[in-house]
Amino acid sequence: MKTIGFIGLGTMGKPMALNLLKKGYQVNGYDLFPEKARDFSQAGGTLLNSAVEVARNSHFIFTSVPSFVNLQEIMFGKNGCIKDLIKGRIFVDLSTIAPAEARQMSEQLAKAGHSFLDAPVSGGQKGAAEGTLTIMVGGDEAAFASARPLLEAISSRLTYMGTSGTGQATKLANNLMLAINTAGVAEALMLGSREGVDLNKLLEAVMIGSGRSAQLESHGKNMSMDMFPGKFPVKLMQKDLRLVSQTMIDDNLSLPLSATVLQLYNAAAAAQPGAGHEGVIIALEQLNGYQVGKYQG
Amino acid sequence: MKTIGFIGLGTMGKPMALNLLKKGYQVNGYDLFPEKARDFSQAGGTLLNSAVEVARNSHFIFTSVPSFVNLQEIMFGKNGCIKDLIKGRIFVDLSTIAPAEARQMSEQLAKAGHSFLDAPVSGGQKGAAEGTLTIMVGGDEAAFASARPLLEAISSRLTYMGTSGTGQATKLANNLMLAINTAGVAEALMLGSREGVDLNKLLEAVMIGSGRSAQLESHGKNMSMDMFPGKFPVKLMQKDLRLVSQTMIDDNLSLPLSATVLQLYNAAAAAQPGAGHEGVIIALEQLNGYQVGKYQG
Amino acid sequence: MKTIGFIGLGTMGKPMALNLLKKGYQVNGYDLFPEKARDFSQAGGTLLNSAVEVARNSHFIFTSVPSFVNLQEIMFGKNGCIKDLIKGRIFVDLSTIAPAEARQMSEQLAKAGHSFLDAPVSGGQKGAAEGTLTIMVGGDEAAFASARPLLEAISSRLTYMGTSGTGQATKLANNLMLAINTAGVAEALMLGSREGVDLNKLLEAVMIGSGRSAQLESHGKNMSMDMFPGKFPVKLMQKDLRLVSQTMIDDNLSLPLSATVLQLYNAAAAAQPGAGHEGVIIALEQLNGYQVGKYQG
Amino acid sequence: MKTIGFIGLGTMGKPMALNLLKKGYQVNGYDLFPEKARDFSQAGGTLLNSAVEVARNSHFIFTSVPSFVNLQEIMFGKNGCIKDLIKGRIFVDLSTIAPAEARQMSEQLAKAGHSFLDAPVSGGQKGAAEGTLTIMVGGDEAAFASARPLLEAISSRLTYMGTSGTGQATKLANNLMLAINTAGVAEALMLGSREGVDLNKLLEAVMIGSGRSAQLESHGKNMSMDMFPGKFPVKLMQKDLRLVSQTMIDDNLSLPLSATVLQLYNAAAAAQPGAGHEGVIIALEQLNGYQVGKYQG
Repeated sequence: MKTIGFIGLGTMGKPMALNLLKKGYQVNGYDLFPEKARDFSQAGGTLLNSAVEVARNSHFIFTSVPSFVNLQEIMFGKNGCIKDLIKGRIFVDLSTIAPAEARQMSEQLAKAGHSFLDAPVSGGQKGAAEGTLTIMVGGDEAAFASARPLLEAISSRLTYMGTSGTGQATKLANNLMLAINTAGVAEALMLGSREGVDLNKLLEAVMIGSGRSAQLESHGKNMSMDMFPGKFPVKLMQKDLRLVSQTMIDDNLSLPLSATVLQLYNAAAAAQPGAGHEGVIIALEQLNGYQVGKYQG
Repeated sequence: MKTIGFIGLGTMGKPMALNLLKKGYQVNGYDLFPEKARDFSQAGGTLLNSAVEVARNSHFIFTSVPSFVNLQEIMFGKNGCIKDLIKGRIFVDLSTIAPAEARQMSEQLAKAGHSFLDAPVSGGQKGAAEGTLTIMVGGDEAAFASARPLLEAISSRLTYMGTSGTGQATKLANNLMLAINTAGVAEALMLGSREGVDLNKLLEAVMIGSGRSAQLESHGKNMSMDMFPGKFPVKLMQKDLRLVSQTMIDDNLSLPLSATVLQLYNAAAAAQPGAGHEGVIIALEQLNGYQVGKYQG
Repeated sequence: MKTIGFIGLGTMGKPMALNLLKKGYQVNGYDLFPEKARDFSQAGGTLLNSAVEVARNSHFIFTSVPSFVNLQEIMFGKNGCIKDLIKGRIFVDLSTIAPAEARQMSEQLAKAGHSFLDAPVSGGQKGAAEGTLTIMVGGDEAAFASARPLLEAISSRLTYMGTSGTGQATKLANNLMLAINTAGVAEALMLGSREGVDLNKLLEAVMIGSGRSAQLESHGKNMSMDMFPGKFPVKLMQKDLRLVSQTMIDDNLSLPLSATVLQLYNAAAAAQPGAGHEGVIIALEQLNGYQVGKYQG
Repeated sequence: MKTIGFIGLGTMGKPMALNLLKKGYQVNGYDLFPEKARDFSQAGGTLLNSAVEVARNSHFIFTSVPSFVNLQEIMFGKNGCIKDLIKGRIFVDLSTIAPAEARQMSEQLAKAGHSFLDAPVSGGQKGAAEGTLTIMVGGDEAAFASARPLLEAISSRLTYMGTSGTGQATKLANNLMLAINTAGVAEALMLGSREGVDLNKLLEAVMIGSGRSAQLESHGKNMSMDMFPGKFPVKLMQKDLRLVSQTMIDDNLSLPLSATVLQLYNAAAAAQPGAGHEGVIIALEQLNGYQVGKYQG
């Protein structure tokens, strides 16, 4: 059986690595903060001391890190993965980065003789623990075929999207709709509130209507009460929308709603960084000078 | 049994009036264009020659017209409903107008001694014919209690929302989310297309994701193929968004996404007025200079 | 010499009426609040008791009121101007209303046998007092030729723009640029502040650059110190942008910046209604969570 | 006299280098495309074969390149400037990059023992040739004091803005206002055109009004005739707005107008890449389906 490396054993990485261990794979792990890796070791994982050690001892190397800058450091930094590495490794990046960054990574690794798959995931820590994440994969099809059983050990909800970057583009497309739909709920609630509609009744009426969305169903009620307990933090949504904005810059894309919705998430994140992403309504409350459900005409 | 008046026997009005006839009610009808009223007469309706005749001969007067200007003409114009009318009529307006316009109408009629309910509907011609419309009602609660059986004859999906204007505000809240969600699908598809994702695969992946919405499910596939056969025309969506914009003006509401999405619907309606509302993607295709699904990098 | 009527002797109306008196014209005046008219009477004006009395006793009737609703009441309300009025009067409206409203007014008065000029002014109370207002006139050219000497008595900065509504459209075009330029200064200052630039130095550098504007010159310095003493109140700018928005609705115009800038003025007016219009920067301070010039990185 | 290096002898770099030669300085030059450097050699410049040669033989090294990527290659690439370079050089970058990129460059060079000034210029090729560019400088004050005479040889319109990145931030602030003001002119013209105003008269009226700006004065007339001969290309404005957008991403800045105006420049650049930046009006013409000045009601 091929050995697996896993770099980045944090909130998302750890439960995914544990799933690989549960399926009987041998996994070499590394994290910049070794204290994060205790569970991983106890579950049978082999903790190594650097990214390059992981790379040298594994056929497949998974990464799950917060940003492209981290990923580049892990790959090409001092003691980074590809230092004196024998050719032919398959790198699978489970992080969320921009499509152009994924393509750049793929090209850089191809020059060094390795394969790279962008494989961002959706579904949060819960989905990672329960093996129900959605994984959207871009990159070389043969590399995907090789990595497929391992990815299936992480989650069965797996789609191969096409060439390098398309996994990331698909995740961004989903999260962009998520953000826009949520902000749409926020604007509809502010409108209803200002017009004196009882928000419970409003939600009841629209919940079955043509304007419904997954976000309305999950968060509409809490938003109408100015409560933001969602598991997907406003800071992470802001990060994903920054990647959308970066992609718009990279490719000269004109997407007016996307540009506007990021401004709202920026404002919400500045005002209440610990909120769930449904806290985007805070931006509208600031702009209008009243809290949703509390407008006094 | 109380007699009913029905003014405006067009695309939406006629099937609603027919439903009242089917339930055994006696209905007096009027339309500016009498040729529209043939089906109504054949189904047992009594066609009268003016709005005021309808009003004088009916306890409840329903209206279903394209705009507030029409409604005012029908009510207060030459031979308008309230001309020399005995006090105490209940007017039920099934049209879509602005909440402030509904409140104004309610006040004007109250001064003349009548009640007014705003009762906009959602669900299109099909919903009207099949009695499955959603009806959102605002206005005096006692008047609603009286009118309730008649409204239930039109559709059982009936919600009383509160004071005057709240029916309209609820409809606008729904349609605003509808518009924003649809434009969100359009931006996500343009992004995916530009990044080289196969749109069939993209739709498959996001259809079950956290960014899903009723509009994605209904129209995503057609939008990805530049086909806009939707039954809800882009011109009507533009009209509803104009009412949102009017409401923002009336009440100094700051709703950045709503303001932006109207610009896109204006552009789509200018470019292809006969399209279904999912044709909003046309605005993005113009801005970016390529058709969705046909970007050649 | 022809007699002149002047309806609306408020902040703007009074100094304009006084200029007509100074030039030797006989002026009949009316205001809903007679106490406003004291200066007018003392300067030799004849105060009458209703709009209709003014109209009956004057060849030219000037109006200067806050809104279209006021104008309609003055014209067509109980004791409104045109009640039993002999045909052939020339009405000159110095108020700011929407172009479509001016056209509607012109049509209604034409049906009654009168002429109507839209003649909005720019330059504030100071300009009105000093006779330096800019007056932009739309409507029938012959009527303009008749009214011209009177308008010149109010200010020599007079331009005939064309058919009915074009005076208002020109004023809106100017004020739209004014609003957008001011908000542009605000965004540039917020950007500079966030990047740690000394705003005095920044202003010095850009004041002579290609991004300069009348608003930058007048208000840039105050805005950088969070001071908003401008004579043109944020509430009035908001009102003019509402007219732009109304015009966009009336004519299905897609103007993305205009739509966006109104959201910012709405927010500023909600937060600090007494500020000068340069207080639009308040909206950005709310969104970003820091005051311009006080960002602590 | 200290020797000077100049890397990047293109549209902007060449005339600036020639100004240094005219003032009697000894200048070592390099360009990736040596054919660009003929004028430089003929004017007495010393053409060298690599960036590192220039750096080794010069006390001050000026750079003028299209993008941050180019700058990084020139500094840190193979045969890049700092290869085995003795400490203590002063680098002066005349390119336009993002403030955060300038700070990053400054830090990287500081680690290698060198100083870095960001010194973007404004005023175009004409300003470069005539020595009338505006130069906005950020970075270490002592380094600025050393470089000052050389910068003054390029242009006397020189301002020291503060710490690293503030030169770039100032340039972006100017160009952001430039873009917003121009797009504001475009929206005002579209509004006037739609309302039937003669655009010559409109321009005459607003040219002296409170909405005036440098861009209105320079380009209003051409824009009203759909002519875009401006020397500042729409592609370069788009690039600068991308830097603004990048800065908004880097620093979580919420600037709604800035976000919106970039969408318009993206659209104009996609439609007519060779136009002057005043061609931003093309985006509005697409959205509204008519050419400015040619609306047929």
